[in-house]
Amino acid sequence: MTALTIAKPQDIDRILRLVSDFHAEVDIIQSDETRQAALLPLLEGSPHGVIYLAGPARAPIGYVIVTFGWSIELGGMEAWIDEIYIRPAVRGRGIGSEILSSLPRALAGAGVKAMHLEVAKDNDRAKSLYEKLHFSPRDKFCLMTRKL
Amino acid sequence: MTALTIAKPQDIDRILRLVSDFHAEVDIIQSDETRQAALLPLLEGSPHGVIYLAGPARAPIGYVIVTFGWSIELGGMEAWIDEIYIRPAVRGRGIGSEILSSLPRALAGAGVKAMHLEVAKDNDRAKSLYEKLHFSPRDKFCLMTRKL
Repeated sequence: MTALTIAKPQDIDRILRLVSDFHAEVDIIQSDETRQAALLPLLEGSPHGVIYLAGPARAPIGYVIVTFGWSIELGGMEAWIDEIYIRPAVRGRGIGSEILSSLPRALAGAGVKAMHLEVAKDNDRAKSLYEKLHFSPRDKFCLMTRKL
Repeated sequence: MTALTIAKPQDIDRILRLVSDFHAEVDIIQSDETRQAALLPLLEGSPHGVIYLAGPARAPIGYVIVTFGWSIELGGMEAWIDEIYIRPAVRGRGIGSEILSSLPRALAGAGVKAMHLEVAKDNDRAKSLYEKLHFSPRDKFCLMTRKL
């Protein structure tokens, strides 16, 4: 069982390194300042999300960022897997799946009504993994975004 | 210009009536208890969202529910149009469009990075309206949900 520890402000350097590695891997281009400004509130107790370190807190093997939203239709609080990253050296051992099946149990216990994630449409491998973990595609809807 | 007023706990009955009307129109089946439990925190100052009454606060012509999330990639707070409803009797006058173009300005001023909404994939009329209002479809991604 991979331990998940809630990251605190003193973990910012460890978190920043992991998040930069993830962003480089998936081609998210972001300055360190912007990244830090987006991460820090979640380390400081913001109600909008929580960052978990996976594995030993001082030498984490990955991280998960869960952010919180609200939906009247779903009846209250919803959670998003905003980012999940496992270091390449320890991939393929089911750590990600283990986390994605334990988190919903914990969040349901805290009153969260549903959990969402976004996956690239052409990433069939990830999609079939998420389906095994009881996530269903919302095929009938289209998400639209306006940057501000 | 249609006035938007932030709804307070004392508006619960007006809100409940409007939300029930909307849910009936779009086939969302929900008990009054569940609906009230999902709405009340937003009237009571929850950080997860805000309900606006459109038009005269004592005789509103509709409502908008804006909920808040967080995204590292987007650099911080994001907003969702969780629900928007204009009474049938006053539709077709551009009130919805007016609200959807004034809200992003107000939210951007409060530091919100992006605004999202979901639309039924086959609702071309709504999609083209939202595109005119600068919302772009996130075509490359698939949203997946697990109810808890």
